[in-house]
Amino acid sequence: MASNSSSHSPRTVEEIFKDFSARHAAVLRALTGDVEEFYSQCDPERDNLCLYGHPNESWEVSVPAEEVPPELPEPVLGINFARDGMERRDWLSLVAMHTDSWLLSVAFYFGARLNRNERTTKETIVIILKIIHNEGREDIAHEVLTTDQMNLEDIKDIPTEWRISKSRATL
Amino acid sequence: MASNSSSHSPRTVEEIFKDFSARHAAVLRALTGDVEEFYSQCDPERDNLCLYGHPNESWEVSVPAEEVPPELPEPVLGINFARDGMERRDWLSLVAMHTDSWLLSVAFYFGARLNRNERTTKETIVIILKIIHNEGREDIAHEVLTTDQMNLEDIKDIPTEWRISKSRATL
Repeated sequence: MASNSSSHSPRTVEEIFKDFSARHAAVLRALTGDVEEFYSQCDPERDNLCLYGHPNESWEVSVPAEEVPPELPEPVLGINFARDGMERRDWLSLVAMHTDSWLLSVAFYFGARLNRNERTTKETIVIILKIIHNEGREDIAHEVLTTDQMNLEDIKDIPTEWRISKSRATL
Repeated sequence: MASNSSSHSPRTVEEIFKDFSARHAAVLRALTGDVEEFYSQCDPERDNLCLYGHPNESWEVSVPAEEVPPELPEPVLGINFARDGMERRDWLSLVAMHTDSWLLSVAFYFGARLNRNERTTKETIVIILKIIHNEGREDIAHEVLTTDQMNLEDIKDIPTEWRISKSRATL
């Protein structure tokens, strides 16, 4: 069973962003550098499986949380069942799209605990944009689909100091 | 089985926002005006249940999609099992937090299909902020938790014409 527990529970915008970034790094590695290992773990003969990214930057392919409702939003269920019925690239893209969506749902689930002042400061908005645009990196789906760089030039509101250099984004 | 199908599949930022707004209106009604009906449908004796908001502004309490991986991100599973073990208000808040998070995950799942130009225009950013802040209305969790109005005065980037009047938000 996956350890997708909220016993680790970020309480500030900065902690939520740190949590998001660590989970993001984990699943990005699963879908790129560790893709052979990830692919082989998603055996269609096994039970319903999910891809988890954990706040310690590890990834895990596991059955979902036993307890329902779960403590945190759960990633998409049953990715392994789709693996052999699709082109590998299409399957990875599907998993990446669902995983992107899950990362956001976890971040905003934690964010629901922020009070209204914390939710509406300029800093929060900037971090929300960073989360959505993955700090000017490609998001996971785009990482899998294409090597194009996202163009954030139009988003003038993100201060330079918030941007993370491309070199740090290389995993 | 829930009809959480992507056969209805918004393709532009405006369509995604329309989809989000309709689902949002649906679940907000389930958790406020229709709360007695919603509460009674979440019988702990029934199977794993989810709260769905549909793009036609209807809500549904139903077992999850049979097919995995599902076409769209699924709402939290098993809300009915938690109902009788918590204070009613706390249970509704829990469902609201998970539902907020699910609405965002659906919107951003659709958004993953946008190309990089569509994702980074000023209009897209404004709509993202609208989605996250529910157009200056309280979000669902806050609606359930409190009658405080969210203060979006700090978000100068949202043009007045994008804001929806409070009166329209009253369901």
